Amino acid sequence: MPKISNKGQKMPESPIRKLVPYSEIAKKKGNKVYHLNIGQPDIKTPEVAMNAVKNFDIEVLEYSHSAGFESYRTKLSQFYKNQGLPIEVEDIIISTGGSEALLFAMGSTMDHEDEIIIPEPFYANYNGFSTASGVTVVPVISSIDTGFALPPIADFEKLITPKTKAILICNPGNPTGYLYSKEEIMQLAELVKKHDLFLIADEVYREFTYDGDVHYSVMNIPGLEENAIMIDSVSKRYSMCGARIGCIVSKNKELMATAMKFAQARLSPPTFAQVASEAALDTPQSYFDDVISEYRERRDTLITELNKIEGVKVATPKGAFYCIAELPIENADDFARWLLESYDLDGETVMVAPAAGFYSTPGVGMNQVRIAYVLKKEDLVQAVYILKAAITTYNAK
Amino acid sequence: MPKISNKGQKMPESPIRKLVPYSEIAKKKGNKVYHLNIGQPDIKTPEVAMNAVKNFDIEVLEYSHSAGFESYRTKLSQFYKNQGLPIEVEDIIISTGGSEALLFAMGSTMDHEDEIIIPEPFYANYNGFSTASGVTVVPVISSIDTGFALPPIADFEKLITPKTKAILICNPGNPTGYLYSKEEIMQLAELVKKHDLFLIADEVYREFTYDGDVHYSVMNIPGLEENAIMIDSVSKRYSMCGARIGCIVSKNKELMATAMKFAQARLSPPTFAQVASEAALDTPQSYFDDVISEYRERRDTLITELNKIEGVKVATPKGAFYCIAELPIENADDFARWLLESYDLDGETVMVAPAAGFYSTPGVGMNQVRIAYVLKKEDLVQAVYILKAAITTYNAK
Ligand SMILES: Cc1ncc(COP(=O)(O)O)c(C=O)c1O
Ligand SMILES: Cc1ncc(COP(=O)(O)O)c(C=O)c1O
Repeated sequence: MPKISNKGQKMPESPIRKLVPYSEIAKKKGNKVYHLNIGQPDIKTPEVAMNAVKNFDIEVLEYSHSAGFESYRTKLSQFYKNQGLPIEVEDIIISTGGSEALLFAMGSTMDHEDEIIIPEPFYANYNGFSTASGVTVVPVISSIDTGFALPPIADFEKLITPKTKAILICNPGNPTGYLYSKEEIMQLAELVKKHDLFLIADEVYREFTYDGDVHYSVMNIPGLEENAIMIDSVSKRYSMCGARIGCIVSKNKELMATAMKFAQARLSPPTFAQVASEAALDTPQSYFDDVISEYRERRDTLITELNKIEGVKVATPKGAFYCIAELPIENADDFARWLLESYDLDGETVMVAPAAGFYSTPGVGMNQVRIAYVLKKEDLVQAVYILKAAITTYNAK
Repeated sequence: MPKISNKGQKMPESPIRKLVPYSEIAKKKGNKVYHLNIGQPDIKTPEVAMNAVKNFDIEVLEYSHSAGFESYRTKLSQFYKNQGLPIEVEDIIISTGGSEALLFAMGSTMDHEDEIIIPEPFYANYNGFSTASGVTVVPVISSIDTGFALPPIADFEKLITPKTKAILICNPGNPTGYLYSKEEIMQLAELVKKHDLFLIADEVYREFTYDGDVHYSVMNIPGLEENAIMIDSVSKRYSMCGARIGCIVSKNKELMATAMKFAQARLSPPTFAQVASEAALDTPQSYFDDVISEYRERRDTLITELNKIEGVKVATPKGAFYCIAELPIENADDFARWLLESYDLDGETVMVAPAAGFYSTPGVGMNQVRIAYVLKKEDLVQAVYILKAAITTYNAK
């Protein structure tokens, strides 16, 4: 029998997919499941995007340029400029989701066994992309007690070795919902310049900030041009996750020329999806205003309800649409399975993502879960109500 | 300044893209360029595929399952069965083009510095995918004098080391147009079983065979189930390269479970494109009959015309839509640039792909070019006429 690669064996399974067999059990029992576990928004995709695809009339569905349509990149550059980010057409390569942009960034900056420092808890697929790229993740722990603020710079410095090539942050954070302050970004900027590292900022949730907080992009830090790499995506911005369009953005010419070689090897990003994404740039501001105020209300509802459960600790998210909650239980993995397999409150239960999968340090976050507020407010209220009852039953077992 | 990865520096530039600046010069001069250099067919995409996207009515463009739509995989399995290939739904993972399927295959089977044996000349992006995967390509030379038939098995065996994990073939071949016989596939099957290797067969041109030759898929060799991995794509089959849909197919459960982890990390293949690809399975047979007979005529025209040039050697392709031609010149790289930069015949010139980029052994194929017959017959006749005149002028310099 031929052998699977070590890399393949080490590829992590998604912490959410692991629960799918148990959610099947819940469904088979006829129980209704409230999905607090996924990052798939229920928000409508802008009509302007869907209509562009309907009206896309061509004879031959050709490869596009490997960097994406020139017209799309031009309009996207303007979109960023309108947000105050000085991003030119040549600073952008369109990718197949933010996912592929992350792979391009890692491949262009890191070799086998090089190290990337990431504040944890972090988006679980960073583990997969790192393993696929042969790269070692070096976590630096951020704590629920500070709301997952940036760990002290000294903690980063302790971890820097000759193999360290980049620091990766997610801003605002999945799964933390934390939004880095300008001071925190400036501290990181100084650190990466001092040590000649890349600062990769996954900003796919950039628009999702609440409470009037301003988002500070790494593309807006003077002097950081050679170090900064921004990852972006249309998935969440326009609720069009299925398009699979994102981009890698940098002013570092050598970096972009290298990323371009990865882009050329895979030929081009998807054409229909680029048509939709280009058109989506015309989405009216009112769409975003509605979406943001909807998420803000959901967040407020969720946090209010969670705080009603005794023993629950939760850091109020400032952005994105996730939060990490510490529950008065010992093992969130077991609890999440039990919720699906063995529990129901009048035929209803909830699905949460155990947070351990978002940490790279073993044993951390065992009593935490990630909750996504991608449900209507009434549903969030009911889901947390079920969660509360479930915790009592679970702990009485 | 932060440093680019060694991997990134080693990533090859596409041999075709390297010529783009020169084709810009030709265009600027107002010269018409016949593109014999690209694999972008001019064939119309089936209407049934385009219409399915137009009629795709949804509110939220969601992520699909990481393995692709269940409905698409089910229909695709039936499509393969109709072609005599016993492929079940669970043997298929939908990928973003054949390109991503190749990356999944390499990542699942090979680690850093492992070796993959590939008969050369081969599809140039195999170099890029190998470099990105940290894998070493070990070429085994096939010769224009045998029409690029499979090199003797002894030549493969000489190259096998403990680091060898797979053999990769392209059948029918880009850039050779060679179609492996059943005997050749059986020899490879025996070889990989003897040495516990994977046999990865890139069969994206499977339908494009002429002269009544039958295509032998690695998915049709009894006893090869654990070793065989097939790479497929809708790009050429339905002339929908811009969709970016392909798949990795294998009966090896461990391999597929591993590939699935790579698929999950990147979330899902593009949704619009899956809708188009699923619908494309209803393309009537008459479409393929027309396409194949068009390509056959183009091939015959091209080969007849090329043989009129003194000193040209060309192996008649049996499949795909490329051929390798040896020209009576010394350096095809220089010649191809010169054609664009300095030559025209009454305002017209041709663009060809220097074949050296399809070899991994340095210095081989220097006097060869790859010609794609993706143009109308009249254009092919005119293009080869220009090529002939150009060779005379070039050699008289
Ligand atoms: C933090 C973060 N980065 C990147 C991605 C990848 O998204 P996509 O590939 O759909 O752009 C996600 C998706 O959930 C995410 O949460
Ligand atoms: C031999 C071969 N394999 C794979 C591919 C990749 O095609 P795609 O990613 O469009 O499916 C191509 C494209 O030209 C090819 O020629």
